[in-house]
Amino acid sequence: MSDKKEFVKELTNMDEDFASWYTDIILKAELVDYAPVKGFMVIRPYGYAIWENIQSVLDKKFKETGHTNAYFPLLIPESLLNKEKEHVEGFAPEVAWVTHGGSNELGERLCIRPTSETIISTMYSKWVKSYRDLPVLINQWANVVRWEKTTRPFLRTAEFLWQEGHTLHETSNEAEEETIRMLNIYADVFENYLAIPVIKGRKSDKEKFAGAVATYTIEAMMHDGKALQSGTSHFFGDGFAKAFDIKYQGRDGKEAYPFQTSWGVSTRSIGGIIMTHGDERGLKLPPRIAPIQVVIVPFAQHKDGVLDKVEEIRKTLSANYRVEADIRDYQTPGYKCNHWELRGVPVRVEIGPKDIEQGQCILFRRDTCEKEIVSLDNIEKRVGELLEEIQANMLEMARQNRINKTKTAHNLDEYLKIFEEADGFVKMMWCGERNCEDKLKELTSATIRCIPFEEEHLGDTCCVCGKAAKHMVYTGKQY
Amino acid sequence: MSDKKEFVKELTNMDEDFASWYTDIILKAELVDYAPVKGFMVIRPYGYAIWENIQSVLDKKFKETGHTNAYFPLLIPESLLNKEKEHVEGFAPEVAWVTHGGSNELGERLCIRPTSETIISTMYSKWVKSYRDLPVLINQWANVVRWEKTTRPFLRTAEFLWQEGHTLHETSNEAEEETIRMLNIYADVFENYLAIPVIKGRKSDKEKFAGAVATYTIEAMMHDGKALQSGTSHFFGDGFAKAFDIKYQGRDGKEAYPFQTSWGVSTRSIGGIIMTHGDERGLKLPPRIAPIQVVIVPFAQHKDGVLDKVEEIRKTLSANYRVEADIRDYQTPGYKCNHWELRGVPVRVEIGPKDIEQGQCILFRRDTCEKEIVSLDNIEKRVGELLEEIQANMLEMARQNRINKTKTAHNLDEYLKIFEEADGFVKMMWCGERNCEDKLKELTSATIRCIPFEEEHLGDTCCVCGKAAKHMVYTGKQY
Repeated sequence: MSDKKEFVKELTNMDEDFASWYTDIILKAELVDYAPVKGFMVIRPYGYAIWENIQSVLDKKFKETGHTNAYFPLLIPESLLNKEKEHVEGFAPEVAWVTHGGSNELGERLCIRPTSETIISTMYSKWVKSYRDLPVLINQWANVVRWEKTTRPFLRTAEFLWQEGHTLHETSNEAEEETIRMLNIYADVFENYLAIPVIKGRKSDKEKFAGAVATYTIEAMMHDGKALQSGTSHFFGDGFAKAFDIKYQGRDGKEAYPFQTSWGVSTRSIGGIIMTHGDERGLKLPPRIAPIQVVIVPFAQHKDGVLDKVEEIRKTLSANYRVEADIRDYQTPGYKCNHWELRGVPVRVEIGPKDIEQGQCILFRRDTCEKEIVSLDNIEKRVGELLEEIQANMLEMARQNRINKTKTAHNLDEYLKIFEEADGFVKMMWCGERNCEDKLKELTSATIRCIPFEEEHLGDTCCVCGKAAKHMVYTGKQY
Repeated sequence: MSDKKEFVKELTNMDEDFASWYTDIILKAELVDYAPVKGFMVIRPYGYAIWENIQSVLDKKFKETGHTNAYFPLLIPESLLNKEKEHVEGFAPEVAWVTHGGSNELGERLCIRPTSETIISTMYSKWVKSYRDLPVLINQWANVVRWEKTTRPFLRTAEFLWQEGHTLHETSNEAEEETIRMLNIYADVFENYLAIPVIKGRKSDKEKFAGAVATYTIEAMMHDGKALQSGTSHFFGDGFAKAFDIKYQGRDGKEAYPFQTSWGVSTRSIGGIIMTHGDERGLKLPPRIAPIQVVIVPFAQHKDGVLDKVEEIRKTLSANYRVEADIRDYQTPGYKCNHWELRGVPVRVEIGPKDIEQGQCILFRRDTCEKEIVSLDNIEKRVGELLEEIQANMLEMARQNRINKTKTAHNLDEYLKIFEEADGFVKMMWCGERNCEDKLKELTSATIRCIPFEEEHLGDTCCVCGKAAKHMVYTGKQY
């Protein structure tokens, strides 16, 4: 839609104004549009197709690990939200309230789910009676609403789409194992499908989910050096079980509370793809989740045989790849090349009468913007290889960006100097105290992203206060 | 979950109290549960898996016919809902209103979408500029909320899941063709996947969608003779386009309004499956959408070799079918057989030590409750055949029920007499006047289900008023 000539304009320079560049991309590549209600987004077909591909990969992995999907109600009575103290404190300020059904005022206000722990725990308390009912391994694909003040499409919107897994286990160990298992699935999907390298770790107490004992996270670095919390997995202990009276008869015949987890990944991941891989020409999509993996652009398509050959190639490649042929007769090849580069299609096939004569075509790869000539006999094989190469190279480029923008600070002076120069991850030792965490944020707006599973020994003292260090942490400014 | 001994109880007799039988089934087969908020439902994993299978079939057919998915916001400003007069009159009385975001009262009330014509038309008016942008073929998978007074899980709930397609076309003809194309897809999916025969037709003006020029419908008959409107496809003309100012530059350079359609199928379809196929033992699921197609129940599973053989069969069958082995050691084979019959699994494999000795097992088919002995060498082939036979037979049984419960009335006396005896479809001639339609409803609570695409000639006069007939119609009492 809206493929007007005037549509392909210069994008904002990403190094000068990353935020405007991002907005340009998402609108011009037709990933989203702004909705009539402030803070809400419309996910357009091209953006939604990326989400469908992410969903499909995640859903398969959830099912392979024994989870099933279910669907819980959109609306939660205020009294349920209030049952877990920390949870309600965390979420109540940002929920949307339904007060009227039709023309009647409701007896009790209902909130649109900001997350579903409370409603799901309520149902679990009805369903779980015996240790034989455990584990409960349920996931939900749903929309949630959080009335955020500052919003940006995909990254932080009043409504977003996500999956939320909610599980119950007999022992604390099993629940912790589940928490880590799902975090590892997230890391796998981000690295091997979205081509986004992540650091796995635990959130500080300050940054953890409202009501959780521990929150685990995968943290990604965007092109501009800022951090994106990309997926989280929470261990609740038996706190929610106690608040919601989920009880079962254990193997010993005694009543017990199960241990609980929840974990989620959202449409925010699409924002991560854009900000990790995009460049001055637009979006770059990793082949495994790209809605269109190969686009064919004919040159001199009015000449005899060109469109026939395009159709032949399209058919051949469609057997294994997601392919589109752009045969619009009212746009130039140059326009089409820009159009599909902006949309991040990994491979472009260019073919015109001379190429056909010579039995060849040109392959353009979006990751490096390089071209190569390939024999038409070999096109299927070469496109397959190229998609794999692009997938691997995009992960590698993102990893290289992260390496370049990850520094180490041993004291506050070093720390401040680093952020004066540029945003990035700063590794440091930390005493574990909230004070030092707050001070960092106050001085730089950076926060502790996580205590990584693999801590390095960078020294013995806290980077902020100089006292004995407890942990090595990654810090950074967040989206 | 909740596989307690006390769980398998008698179901209500379906011929005595079909409504209670329905409630028994949906709760005991763990398809749904009631939510804390009245009128809302929780779709449990087994019920949701049926929905996933229906989604997957529909989604594939939508994509094959050129549609893409997108996602539009949950909340619609009151001013947008008000733009199309008939539409707002139809829906405003049954929407949920959001009045507060966090602790702030909103400037304008927002309704939770009861359907998305208004928000989608608003976006289309931004996106469509030229005839080259047409057709627009977008579908959305989403939750919607309608504040219904009387609710029943799947059939009529305050929140339900559905898909809603919304398309724009250059000509009225194209839009009408789309409306019928999608209705035909619905009919195909209902008949060939859900094994529910349907009558395709047009709604009377009284029964059509608020704001539509014409509403097309597929109407199914439930086991008890009542009708279920199972999917609808609406032709809007250019009414919404004018109300929402969707304009484009036509081929002649002049401004024009596009023609619009919308079409939807919801989780109500699961209610249709239950009420079409179920019997006194519980649910019967058509193989093509059954979450579990084959369940293996071992006898004397503690004996040497039984569980090994079960696992071997499970592996063999899992290559092509959705299979589960029920090897719970704390339930009897009898309990398990009841358990899976209640859940409607199409084929059950029974196997014990003696069967293994003889190189055979028993196949139970849920549609007819018949058993047959099959050689273990032949099990894969026979199970495949059996699933096909069951699929076909379930459609045939449903068709037979519809034939048995479809009568013809030539005048009001005949009409009333039919409904005194039993519910069903009553075919009749109709003058086309609203008066006669209202009278039927008043006297019997039956409504005109549709003017079928294939009208029969049953006489020359209206069954109600005796004046000249315009149409042959199907009437019935609806869910």
